[in-house]
Amino acid sequence: MKISRIDHLGIAVQSIDDALPYFENTLGLKCYAIEEVADQKVKTAFLKVGEVKIELLEPTSPESAIAKFIENGGKGVHHVAFAIEDGVANALAECEAQQIRLIDKAPRMGAENMSIAFLHPKSTAGILTELCEPAK
Amino acid sequence: MKISRIDHLGIAVQSIDDALPYFENTLGLKCYAIEEVADQKVKTAFLKVGEVKIELLEPTSPESAIAKFIENGGKGVHHVAFAIEDGVANALAECEAQQIRLIDKAPRMGAENMSIAFLHPKSTAGILTELCEPAK
Repeated sequence: MKISRIDHLGIAVQSIDDALPYFENTLGLKCYAIEEVADQKVKTAFLKVGEVKIELLEPTSPESAIAKFIENGGKGVHHVAFAIEDGVANALAECEAQQIRLIDKAPRMGAENMSIAFLHPKSTAGILTELCEPAK
Repeated sequence: MKISRIDHLGIAVQSIDDALPYFENTLGLKCYAIEEVADQKVKTAFLKVGEVKIELLEPTSPESAIAKFIENGGKGVHHVAFAIEDGVANALAECEAQQIRLIDKAPRMGAENMSIAFLHPKSTAGILTELCEPAK
């Protein structure tokens, strides 16, 4: 697969309202979008630092994966997303051929009109890993 | 403070030898340096993706902070480092004025001849945060 850059870091937070002042006032980054992703039961806030986006993820339901991550003591970085140049479906096929455990067998729609798929942290040095590209 | 980009992600691994094939063969990134940082009791391996470095951190002693992170169930991303344009000492002073909890009260030397300081995750949305700049 061809990765051009880190697309974003997904950061789990209890509350975007509580977390934003640190990112905006202390780090001096700017939130440019807030979006709700209903099927993942999260509210997201996007900031940019260099070529990488920071995606704050606030659970909107106790059933959301982010709520469970926080409940299990998870803090901070929830996932790392790589921008794929030569197709997420192609990258998944390569991963499967290399015995990398997949969470998504096929690309699906994520926030910001991106086609996304996740790899399982068991195969990726413990990092929940997202592969993404703009949806066609 | 003025942040230009994410300088690197610090990734805790049990073994660089075991983790590298995923980063090199699956993700297609290239390890360009391996370095031991004696005072932090870690061996580091550096890869680059876009403008961001990935720093794999393998403990060389059970007393290393990375060994303790792994022992306490920590996985994957250990810290996020921001490249500071206007001085790490200056950034620390700003953080202190904003009641951000500091781990390092003054910059110290890190890997790759960088001047570094850490902020405490209690004040930084749960993300162990490093501020860094090339040492003068």
